[in-house]
Amino acid sequence: MIGSIAAFFTTLAFVPQAMKVIKTKDTSGISLGMYTMSVIGLLLWAIHGIRINDIALIIANTITFILSATILTCKIKYK
Amino acid sequence: MIGSIAAFFTTLAFVPQAMKVIKTKDTSGISLGMYTMSVIGLLLWAIHGIRINDIALIIANTITFILSATILTCKIKYK
Repeated sequence: MIGSIAAFFTTLAFVPQAMKVIKTKDTSGISLGMYTMSVIGLLLWAIHGIRINDIALIIANTITFILSATILTCKIKYK
Repeated sequence: MIGSIAAFFTTLAFVPQAMKVIKTKDTSGISLGMYTMSVIGLLLWAIHGIRINDIALIIANTITFILSATILTCKIKYK
């Protein structure tokens, strides 16, 4: 139970950040390094989930991958 | 193996962001919601790790919790 609640928070935590950068285009304080590493790591987690056939791992990390990739794209676009 | 590499990236991804906010104090683009949710989620992951006696889960999430709490503190301090 605690694991699912933890997953809920850490997966959806990126939603407010994605909404904020899309709305404000203010990415000066955002770290390019963080989101580059996040995107790579989350992609690897999703691949790992596919390899061990863990649907929760696949879904959670695919959602967070998409959100992180959105933030990374905004960071690159708006500098 | 892929899981460990993924954990490396997603755990240490917060290091460049923590360094950037400490150095620049530029937190206007950082989402308060994201880091509040991250801190809660990572704390729950660490507790989950303790309950299932998974040392890797405990270490990775404690590191990321400390980094996220640092970024959250800077966000609250510098607005």
